[in-house]
Amino acid sequence: MIEFGNFYAQIAKKSLASWLEVLPKQLKVWRDEQAHGLLPNWEKVLAKLPDQSGAKIDLTNGVTIEAKEGLAEGQIRKVENLLRSYHPWRKGPYRIFDFDIDTEWRSDWKWDRLAQHISPLKYRQVLDVGCGNGYHMWRMLGADAEFVVGIDPSSLFLAQFEAIRQLAGNPQNIHLLPLGIEQLPPLQAFDTVFSMGVLYHRRSPIEHIFQLKDQLVHGGELILETLVVEGNKDTVLTPQGRYAKMNNVWFLPSVDLLALWLEKCGLEQVRCVDVTVTSVQEQRRTQWMTNESLEQFLDPNDPSRTIEGLPAPKRAVMIARKPSANDDD
Amino acid sequence: MIEFGNFYAQIAKKSLASWLEVLPKQLKVWRDEQAHGLLPNWEKVLAKLPDQSGAKIDLTNGVTIEAKEGLAEGQIRKVENLLRSYHPWRKGPYRIFDFDIDTEWRSDWKWDRLAQHISPLKYRQVLDVGCGNGYHMWRMLGADAEFVVGIDPSSLFLAQFEAIRQLAGNPQNIHLLPLGIEQLPPLQAFDTVFSMGVLYHRRSPIEHIFQLKDQLVHGGELILETLVVEGNKDTVLTPQGRYAKMNNVWFLPSVDLLALWLEKCGLEQVRCVDVTVTSVQEQRRTQWMTNESLEQFLDPNDPSRTIEGLPAPKRAVMIARKPSANDDD
Amino acid sequence: MIEFGNFYAQIAKKSLASWLEVLPKQLKVWRDEQAHGLLPNWEKVLAKLPDQSGAKIDLTNGVTIEAKEGLAEGQIRKVENLLRSYHPWRKGPYRIFDFDIDTEWRSDWKWDRLAQHISPLKYRQVLDVGCGNGYHMWRMLGADAEFVVGIDPSSLFLAQFEAIRQLAGNPQNIHLLPLGIEQLPPLQAFDTVFSMGVLYHRRSPIEHIFQLKDQLVHGGELILETLVVEGNKDTVLTPQGRYAKMNNVWFLPSVDLLALWLEKCGLEQVRCVDVTVTSVQEQRRTQWMTNESLEQFLDPNDPSRTIEGLPAPKRAVMIARKPSANDDD
Amino acid sequence: MIEFGNFYAQIAKKSLASWLEVLPKQLKVWRDEQAHGLLPNWEKVLAKLPDQSGAKIDLTNGVTIEAKEGLAEGQIRKVENLLRSYHPWRKGPYRIFDFDIDTEWRSDWKWDRLAQHISPLKYRQVLDVGCGNGYHMWRMLGADAEFVVGIDPSSLFLAQFEAIRQLAGNPQNIHLLPLGIEQLPPLQAFDTVFSMGVLYHRRSPIEHIFQLKDQLVHGGELILETLVVEGNKDTVLTPQGRYAKMNNVWFLPSVDLLALWLEKCGLEQVRCVDVTVTSVQEQRRTQWMTNESLEQFLDPNDPSRTIEGLPAPKRAVMIARKPSANDDD
Repeated sequence: MIEFGNFYAQIAKKSLASWLEVLPKQLKVWRDEQAHGLLPNWEKVLAKLPDQSGAKIDLTNGVTIEAKEGLAEGQIRKVENLLRSYHPWRKGPYRIFDFDIDTEWRSDWKWDRLAQHISPLKYRQVLDVGCGNGYHMWRMLGADAEFVVGIDPSSLFLAQFEAIRQLAGNPQNIHLLPLGIEQLPPLQAFDTVFSMGVLYHRRSPIEHIFQLKDQLVHGGELILETLVVEGNKDTVLTPQGRYAKMNNVWFLPSVDLLALWLEKCGLEQVRCVDVTVTSVQEQRRTQWMTNESLEQFLDPNDPSRTIEGLPAPKRAVMIARKPSANDDD
Repeated sequence: MIEFGNFYAQIAKKSLASWLEVLPKQLKVWRDEQAHGLLPNWEKVLAKLPDQSGAKIDLTNGVTIEAKEGLAEGQIRKVENLLRSYHPWRKGPYRIFDFDIDTEWRSDWKWDRLAQHISPLKYRQVLDVGCGNGYHMWRMLGADAEFVVGIDPSSLFLAQFEAIRQLAGNPQNIHLLPLGIEQLPPLQAFDTVFSMGVLYHRRSPIEHIFQLKDQLVHGGELILETLVVEGNKDTVLTPQGRYAKMNNVWFLPSVDLLALWLEKCGLEQVRCVDVTVTSVQEQRRTQWMTNESLEQFLDPNDPSRTIEGLPAPKRAVMIARKPSANDDD
Repeated sequence: MIEFGNFYAQIAKKSLASWLEVLPKQLKVWRDEQAHGLLPNWEKVLAKLPDQSGAKIDLTNGVTIEAKEGLAEGQIRKVENLLRSYHPWRKGPYRIFDFDIDTEWRSDWKWDRLAQHISPLKYRQVLDVGCGNGYHMWRMLGADAEFVVGIDPSSLFLAQFEAIRQLAGNPQNIHLLPLGIEQLPPLQAFDTVFSMGVLYHRRSPIEHIFQLKDQLVHGGELILETLVVEGNKDTVLTPQGRYAKMNNVWFLPSVDLLALWLEKCGLEQVRCVDVTVTSVQEQRRTQWMTNESLEQFLDPNDPSRTIEGLPAPKRAVMIARKPSANDDD
Repeated sequence: MIEFGNFYAQIAKKSLASWLEVLPKQLKVWRDEQAHGLLPNWEKVLAKLPDQSGAKIDLTNGVTIEAKEGLAEGQIRKVENLLRSYHPWRKGPYRIFDFDIDTEWRSDWKWDRLAQHISPLKYRQVLDVGCGNGYHMWRMLGADAEFVVGIDPSSLFLAQFEAIRQLAGNPQNIHLLPLGIEQLPPLQAFDTVFSMGVLYHRRSPIEHIFQLKDQLVHGGELILETLVVEGNKDTVLTPQGRYAKMNNVWFLPSVDLLALWLEKCGLEQVRCVDVTVTSVQEQRRTQWMTNESLEQFLDPNDPSRTIEGLPAPKRAVMIARKPSANDDD
């Protein structure tokens, strides 16, 4: 059974200790009332994965895990099949032993676009909000972050993360919690906070920005990635119905309006470091994600439009800083 | 001391009864921790007002309260002075005995613009969110509403309302509670809900619309008035700093975008029944509100602009309907 | 469905108003999670009882309800059968129309023993803790109490009470709530509090006395009836196993020790007004309670002993006063 | 400042992990609202104590802490003076460096009386309820307990304990929490639970026994020490007023009644291993506790009586076992 005792033990001695005032109770409620009904099945899969303690992993250019000496070909195929049972795999790719988890997203491309712009993660406590199965968390660890915490309410993504972590030898400086950002108290304890692919799903983008800011130490850095539209600081798209077949899309601002929002929420040094139209090479159907993907969400006659006739997905990466305690805040 | 026992007794037998599961505790906390420090003083003023039980009131064309027979001129002057101590008076005007409370706003003008468009209030339970001192609540009662509840967190507005109510003979079908909309459970029990002059102060206009919808019965009517800007359905103004010297102004949508938001939140029959630029005759400094008013908030050289250079205040009144229970909701 | 809105409306204007800070939520939880699974059935029986509004009742020497003019013999038999479905009936007897509910207990005997000793109930708010189906509550009303509240966690007793109340024309100055004493906040609002047949079931008699005291106004009166044993102020019986086949019997003090406890808890003018060995005429099997009763709980060879060999049930009635606010308390 | 992060980290990985669902929040509330107003002063004293990490301690026949090499005579005198500022010292004695903390109680005598009777503490998780400054906790550690937790609401005792712990080199297998037993969830995780000198202060001895049982693993052992009186299984003393000048003394049972209570609460193998009248050599005024002590609590003319004329203090040590999970429980 997935347990969080090791995580509690880690944070008890860190600046995150006040989190213990609410977290263990929340995760008890999650286990008892909110976790996906299939979680026990997914946990059984975890129990079947081999002991990889001390395994070699390479996180510099991707996520690559070596099989420990003596792992037989048959066992590797068994691992592959076990992992396939966690369909759909959205964020990746992962290189496991001799096979690739070819995920819907080339999340490594997004990482490559932003990695050069962010403050070095060395010695930093990092939070990844809406972390999915945790792909970027591994890259943060590869960039020398001291302690990486991801949150995402999906039980399946938690299972995928725990599987990867187990194969990676169960490192204790990287943890995923099945929570939404609204469940976090204002910890003010992370040096860097990432929120990628979340804001456009929020009914209140302003509250989301404040919640992210509340997790940062003074002087900390926010990396915010979301869907944007062309326009000036008065432009926002609220899709009347679905957007690229997604329900629950509320606000797609222009880059200028997004920057204005960040500033109005009290962040500073706000800048846009990347704007990229998502390509059907970056997000697509694969063997590990056999459902519909971007190609099916676009107008077949005009790929600059979604199937609903709205501008096709374009994403911006914003970076901003929470002012120091002695600043005018 | 202002007490709410009569209100509890009223709702205990209505469709609002479930409110009792949270309300008395909230108002206890309000009294103990949140009420304005001067409230005890304001309550002392209430105790000095004369007994007007059985007083005549006229609510058809305004709010007019007659003095009961035998009320001496000196007592009337005393009442006038007591009421002046509740400065500033924002919403009105009120005609009390032989004098007028000349408030900052000609709230009667707003009422005249919308009254013809709303569903008749007869037999209706009505909620006024952000009701100020309750001026429009009296007009709703004048339009034959069965039961009128207003909410506004300001302790001063509560005192003003209770003073007027006492002079009006203490009717029990009209009540003001010192609460914000976010404190209300989803009562789904009001036939008509008003929200006027609130939405632009909310960090999340979408949450605000959902909260209003949660108070309505199926088939109930929402009247929403807020600041708007020119533009199409992609246009919203987020003021970088202040707006007309007001802090905490977050979203001024176009009428089209506001209509889209209402529909996206599941309301129907959405229509705009009035758009009016606020004039310096409608909102202005008076003897009963001696602080700055609209004239001071506008650019002296260009009254079509606020002092910050943004479009001058223009307000729209939207009406929408919550779908019936058997509709696609 | 049994609802409590009328009760809330009553207390909203009384010294009991603060109860609304917790009560409606508790009764919501009771309905959703704690009520007996058969309660909906019992409520259907209520719906079949005739409209008796304006019925004549006589509460002076017992509880007698007259049939309203025109109630046919067949309808009376139907009422009798409906009431029989609420088996077992423990406290009574009730005279309904032309028939008697012959209950296990002659509760009227107990009332007769204590009525002469208590302060007159006229104009008093009264609480009956562990009220069963409410028999004594009716007698309190017959003794001119202004407002009678009983609490007892049993859903069946509530249904029995509501049936009697409906046949009595639905008076609104008498209410039963399905609660235990430990759920009450310290209301300090009842002029007289009764606790009869409860204390020996409590793990903590001292806490029970404090809870009762917390319900009383200063100067209010407590009537406490419980099982006692012979002995001096150092004597208490804790039954090792069952007592008269009852589980959950914890402390049977001597009268002297019980008096000492009451005084140690800060009550004054403590006195014992009656000690009676319970007879097999007072508590016995009847047509309306066909289970085992006292005769079966006693040693057939020695009726001065319970079947477990302990002293047979003997009950004392204690009366005490809560000191005035300006006393040394 | 005294912090509990190390304790949280310890229990996060033990069978005590579920405690984290409530404990950190409770200790936050304790710090903010309940801790003694002088605690910050007492914490300043802690900061002045020398670094003794790696210090030698001897817990076999008492509590003896050696000074680390190089600690100057002047520093030792300073430590002695700092510790004296924590007056009054009740439980002990402690041998610190070259001086003794001569406490009110010879708590070592009590330990010697019971140590031979309890199950060996080796490998056990132990809870000491009402632990005072923790003297017996050190002896439990000396008896090879694996992990010792004490609870006591007194802020001064916490400060005394932390001072001793700091001088002992800050071991992490012994912790004191400023809590009352009623604040503990039913952990069912301790192998041995001690409650010494607590039960007679409880309004409900039965609830106290259940709370202790709730902390034990199945098969775990309870050691309960409390004041007793002569008599049979029907005898209990409830002092009308004070007892030996102590307020809040509620129940002094006979040994037989105490055994009956333990059994009725579902404990088994109940036995009394020691009964001792407390002597004025065991509890007395010293230089480290200069207030009144036992001699002043007894009748000067009849030391077999308290000053109130009640039997002089006599204490019994009871041992009992919580049944195994598969027993009839």
